[in-house]
Amino acid sequence: MTHSELSSLIFRKQSYLCVGLDTDPRKIPSHLLTESDPVFAFNKAIIDATADLTVAYKPNIAFYEAQGPRGWESLQKTLEYIPNDCFTIADAKRGDIGNTSDLYARTFFDSTAAGLSFDSVTVAPYMGHDSVTPFLAYEGKWVILLALTSNPGSADFQRQSVQAGEALFEEVIKTAQMWAGPDKLMFVVGATHAEDLERIRQLVPDNFLLVPGVGAQGGSLEEVSRRGLTKAGGLLVNASRSILYASNGTDFAEQARAEARALQTEMAQQLSIMAKQ
Amino acid sequence: MTHSELSSLIFRKQSYLCVGLDTDPRKIPSHLLTESDPVFAFNKAIIDATADLTVAYKPNIAFYEAQGPRGWESLQKTLEYIPNDCFTIADAKRGDIGNTSDLYARTFFDSTAAGLSFDSVTVAPYMGHDSVTPFLAYEGKWVILLALTSNPGSADFQRQSVQAGEALFEEVIKTAQMWAGPDKLMFVVGATHAEDLERIRQLVPDNFLLVPGVGAQGGSLEEVSRRGLTKAGGLLVNASRSILYASNGTDFAEQARAEARALQTEMAQQLSIMAKQ
Repeated sequence: MTHSELSSLIFRKQSYLCVGLDTDPRKIPSHLLTESDPVFAFNKAIIDATADLTVAYKPNIAFYEAQGPRGWESLQKTLEYIPNDCFTIADAKRGDIGNTSDLYARTFFDSTAAGLSFDSVTVAPYMGHDSVTPFLAYEGKWVILLALTSNPGSADFQRQSVQAGEALFEEVIKTAQMWAGPDKLMFVVGATHAEDLERIRQLVPDNFLLVPGVGAQGGSLEEVSRRGLTKAGGLLVNASRSILYASNGTDFAEQARAEARALQTEMAQQLSIMAKQ
Repeated sequence: MTHSELSSLIFRKQSYLCVGLDTDPRKIPSHLLTESDPVFAFNKAIIDATADLTVAYKPNIAFYEAQGPRGWESLQKTLEYIPNDCFTIADAKRGDIGNTSDLYARTFFDSTAAGLSFDSVTVAPYMGHDSVTPFLAYEGKWVILLALTSNPGSADFQRQSVQAGEALFEEVIKTAQMWAGPDKLMFVVGATHAEDLERIRQLVPDNFLLVPGVGAQGGSLEEVSRRGLTKAGGLLVNASRSILYASNGTDFAEQARAEARALQTEMAQQLSIMAKQ
């Protein structure tokens, strides 16, 4: 999916919602546990209930890996089931020396390898350029690089001052722009740091930002939108637990849709405010 | 495996060799491709040929993931096959927000999850304390934290000066020592940075260091040993490609053993030099 296709999708659906598929077999409604693949059955119902309100789905790879080989099968089926008009993100936070990052890129991008072909993968920047560029070598695929993450530990290193008094996350954002343009590169910026979004938006006026941390982690959608939205959309705001586990009864999909609808409604308002500016 | 058990192993085997199981189906000898699980057949032969010369095995998770579900099965069988007198490392370079790192820790440490129970896992520090501590919660298990990696991109961020003029990798090493002691925490330091090992050894006199980059990446075993060995051993020096792919004929295991033997012989000499100091 190209930058302009993703942008069009946002305005057509009036949504920049990304649903995080952090599907935990210990948390899904008990009536699904008799299904042959409960994780896929849950994801399928969530996707059916939210696809028209959503521009992206983000399976969190840890949740599938923790199930061993059958988790990878659930992941394959889930990815195949996601409609074509949704952007797909492998939230894997990988990053290794070149020949190993190559293999991770094949894993998530080349369907002949592990049976997966995501549009994008999240990558950790600590190991530098040759840990990231193998992911950029795939045409039509995206890297979503960790910049300022939503968790408390983001203060430990990401906010350390480096050369010229800038924080490490700013240095990551500046350096990575030498590796790829806004047509292939997004950044992760946690909604829990809405006050930093203005500065980050100055650094990367045209890059999409993937923003986790709205919902269970407490970030504000209004603040994130006000500071991060662009004329091309420019945001993918993720919610996971608040949607997936809105109910643990037989009405889970319906309640998930209600949560997604509430977010999408607020997003439509924010898009309309931004359009008037 | 405890710190003192690992240390004893090193002196008993006269080796601090870690064999990296970066097993690529495209590189293994063609006569193995008719096996039902060529990757496991290859690993089994490598382990049989090297276990008495080796104190640790380090499957590189990317190589297994890139095979999809059957790769995870090869990984499970390989881990089960590694003898008890060898330390095991999941080279996964994971790290995510707390509840996700929890899942990665379960994946690699809790055999009831994905059928794997490694002694240790490599973790990336970028996301800070709550991305690392879930791995430390497992009794008897280890975190091996990336500090100064062996690849060229290590210069991009790891060497950035932060507070007090120290490099980021030094800050990572200092900060992480507040999270765990040398009985649970090791650091990755590439053999391609042997000149930094003295400084790092001052910062962490008692922690084991996992040192990749000898062999295909060009690091010197002698220099690494001179600067990194301690009275307790204190090093695990990894070689992957130089051992695994020493030959691509039917003699691959024999040639792998010869490579491992050459490294172990040099390690025995270095241990004896160190003992005399």
